Amino acid sequence: MKIVFNLRELRRERSALSGTLGLVPTMGCLHIGHLSLVQAAREQNDYVAVSVYVNPLQFGMGEDLDDYPRDPDGDLEKLESEGVDLVWMPEKTEIYPDGYQTYVTVEQLSSRLEGERRPGHMRGVTTVVTKLLIAFTPDRVYLGEKDAQQIHVIQRLVADLQFAVEVVVCPTVRDLDGLALSSRNAKLNPDQRNAATVLYRALTAARSAFMDGERSGSRLRAVMTEIVAAEPLAEPLYVSVADIETLQELKRLPEKSLCSLAVRIGKVALIDNVVLEIT
Amino acid sequence: MKIVFNLRELRRERSALSGTLGLVPTMGCLHIGHLSLVQAAREQNDYVAVSVYVNPLQFGMGEDLDDYPRDPDGDLEKLESEGVDLVWMPEKTEIYPDGYQTYVTVEQLSSRLEGERRPGHMRGVTTVVTKLLIAFTPDRVYLGEKDAQQIHVIQRLVADLQFAVEVVVCPTVRDLDGLALSSRNAKLNPDQRNAATVLYRALTAARSAFMDGERSGSRLRAVMTEIVAAEPLAEPLYVSVADIETLQELKRLPEKSLCSLAVRIGKVALIDNVVLEIT
Repeated sequence: MKIVFNLRELRRERSALSGTLGLVPTMGCLHIGHLSLVQAAREQNDYVAVSVYVNPLQFGMGEDLDDYPRDPDGDLEKLESEGVDLVWMPEKTEIYPDGYQTYVTVEQLSSRLEGERRPGHMRGVTTVVTKLLIAFTPDRVYLGEKDAQQIHVIQRLVADLQFAVEVVVCPTVRDLDGLALSSRNAKLNPDQRNAATVLYRALTAARSAFMDGERSGSRLRAVMTEIVAAEPLAEPLYVSVADIETLQELKRLPEKSLCSLAVRIGKVALIDNVVLEIT
Repeated sequence: MKIVFNLRELRRERSALSGTLGLVPTMGCLHIGHLSLVQAAREQNDYVAVSVYVNPLQFGMGEDLDDYPRDPDGDLEKLESEGVDLVWMPEKTEIYPDGYQTYVTVEQLSSRLEGERRPGHMRGVTTVVTKLLIAFTPDRVYLGEKDAQQIHVIQRLVADLQFAVEVVVCPTVRDLDGLALSSRNAKLNPDQRNAATVLYRALTAARSAFMDGERSGSRLRAVMTEIVAAEPLAEPLYVSVADIETLQELKRLPEKSLCSLAVRIGKVALIDNVVLEIT
């Protein structure tokens, strides 16, 4: 496994790879969710690359950039054992040099949900992903379903800028009690960790109601709101039942919708989602 | 010479080229200025590609998108005789498909001069250039010095997004009377064509004053303003003596500055510039 730090080394190592390349972009502190992306990339490509970079541009003022969990040594050990070929761990200045002023925005899709809750967040994501796609020129890029809006935005980005890359979406990996794996879960104390199951409980309640025939967006949102409200350690940030293409809130649900929410527990904001689909 | 229309064909032809590629992005209606870029690209690369695309995104409301001169047959003839290898003439929908919503902005540098005069113009330029660099993956891209701000903005774009491409700047090609070649010159009637020399007259007067020791930005701008005012067919849009890096207007001139202006003659807006440099 080659580990590179600056872009020059990355380009040299990249150009030495002839064959298909799968890229897994991460912010490090890797868990089984990330490793499932690496495994999918390993199966589908000749080479697998991983970027480990806590992108400051996607964190707003007062967000948890400085607190974001980091574990570079642990990350490298895990990636080595998964048979990764190339890891890029850039310094901040490597990605955003002095005088940096170029931004990539996906307009409408970035304005809702996480984009609305975190101004500038989606612009940070789309800018860094553009830079990673230019730097790695991968054949496939692997993203986790947990970050549903991010997936939509990046799919639009890839289509609009016409990158020759396939976006591969992998299912959310959950703990036994349903909590979606997230590097931020490490910041929860045992009581908070317990309370965090409220996200999946709210989503499964909405899914049950949908399966039972409920097609009203506002009633499905109310189902989730009520469950979050019953959890004293949880502060609701938003609940959403949205069009799967435009991410606009729905009055009546069509065949396929995105049901998502964000909740703050202690200092940690957690997100999760399920797709509601008539099967 | 291969002529391609859609992106799929472009990618196929591009991937068949092994060796260095020089790209000359154009809006067509090619003149000797464009061909000088092609010739520079021909000398410095194994292959030369040219894009011909009147990019709607860089035209504002009420600007001359529909009137912009077009001559695809003439363009192909000229490019063929210059030994170009690959020409992409995309349809509008090929570049901006349905639902398009991704934009690339270079913030500070885009806010002045042409960017201030034409809101959204620079965003249109940087977005389409990003797409061209992704589509062609050239080793070098060739730009004419006439569009001075555009060059600065694209150099910043390339540095910030870290495209592995060298930006090659070629000198402005002028008619015998100093008028910078531009596809828009074809829209001038003989009187207007005559009046259009006012841009170069203003720039050379500013340069003479600079060579004679004038270092006051406001006095140099006044020199140009006066000359433009004396030309009845010319409507001044702006005159500028700006920092060569930041494009901010200067009070006192350092060793090297950008002296530029824009003038409307009839319905046609023309721009030109010279670099003021202590030699």
